[in-house]
Amino acid sequence: MREVFHQSLEDVQGRLVEIADLVTVAIDKATRAFGTSDVALAEEVIADDQVIDDKAVALDELAIEILARQQPVARDLRIVVSALRISASLERMGDIAEHIAQLTRMRFPERAIPKGLKSTFTKMGELDVDVARKLSDLLRTQDLELAEEIRNDDDLIDDLHVAVFEKVLSDSWQGETAATVDATLASRYHERFGDHAVSISKKVSYLATGDWTVDADDTFIAAGSRSDSE
Amino acid sequence: MREVFHQSLEDVQGRLVEIADLVTVAIDKATRAFGTSDVALAEEVIADDQVIDDKAVALDELAIEILARQQPVARDLRIVVSALRISASLERMGDIAEHIAQLTRMRFPERAIPKGLKSTFTKMGELDVDVARKLSDLLRTQDLELAEEIRNDDDLIDDLHVAVFEKVLSDSWQGETAATVDATLASRYHERFGDHAVSISKKVSYLATGDWTVDADDTFIAAGSRSDSE
Repeated sequence: MREVFHQSLEDVQGRLVEIADLVTVAIDKATRAFGTSDVALAEEVIADDQVIDDKAVALDELAIEILARQQPVARDLRIVVSALRISASLERMGDIAEHIAQLTRMRFPERAIPKGLKSTFTKMGELDVDVARKLSDLLRTQDLELAEEIRNDDDLIDDLHVAVFEKVLSDSWQGETAATVDATLASRYHERFGDHAVSISKKVSYLATGDWTVDADDTFIAAGSRSDSE
Repeated sequence: MREVFHQSLEDVQGRLVEIADLVTVAIDKATRAFGTSDVALAEEVIADDQVIDDKAVALDELAIEILARQQPVARDLRIVVSALRISASLERMGDIAEHIAQLTRMRFPERAIPKGLKSTFTKMGELDVDVARKLSDLLRTQDLELAEEIRNDDDLIDDLHVAVFEKVLSDSWQGETAATVDATLASRYHERFGDHAVSISKKVSYLATGDWTVDADDTFIAAGSRSDSE
């Protein structure tokens, strides 16, 4: 029974890594499509999100089956419950990549990325991909140094999010209203990847250490002010 | 055992209703504070969010204890897993109310609600409170007509969200850039309550009918275009 349970857990872990890899690809494509106004790439992200959704549902069904058949307790039970939560966060990251792709498609053939913010969004996108890749490695290896790196990267992403608002609200900003709306939404989306990655890495850390910390899963940042809702 | 399990489920249900009631109060206070620039009311919402977070964590711990001790299977198991998911969505609704309160506080003594959008945001806020109240009633009664009403209300909220972008992008818009940023973020927050309420009501419907539908939990709307990610 123990043996069967461990095989099941390996299956769960393998599927989480698989979904995290797909999410990494989605974030990479979505942020590049946004930066270069590549509508074909954006369409790929939109079409592929269904695959992520389906795999998350399949993983949830597997987790429920494990709970029903193997009735784990204590730490084993928490691992399975955490897998359900992690899959929900990964699925949400996929949705956000899709939102960025939709923003790109909506503005095409105009550029979605507002003038004067190209380098900021490029950096944010690269950090988002980096965070997703580290998240996948963390799920694969349980190397908790990666959790620390993800937290640091999230701080850098938050700084860039603040920089977007500083730019938009500065005297030098010459964007039309549509550009302000796009910058606001796109920055919020780019920033949320980091929050979800931190939230997931806290769950992985908890499983490794048994140290459960309450996690409010979100950060509020707007227009030059910052306040964590944790 | 069966008797004990049903008592546990009643406890879970009672706690979900309690959290939903607190979330309804938070949304009511936050949207009114936003509309009237009432910073004292906004502070209440920010302070009280910790109560919602704590109650959500306590409920999750209870659900995990029920899984460990009573090892439910089939529909009973799905009820407990759904409770975990519903508590996560409710907690998130509390966070979003807090974000609206933070936006209000950040702009004080200026008005957070941009000129020309007062009636739109007032209507959106009222619908958000209405949806939260119906959600609480749905959790209490499992009356599925409420799920239908919540879905209809969410459509109205989405229409108002689109109306905000139409206003902001119209020739008549005279708001400064900061007002555009505020309108964009605030509208996105106001709109998310409806999405979460629909997502939770689908889970309740599923438990009542056994009809599980995949739920992507989110709607993307921006600047005159709409596309559900479901």
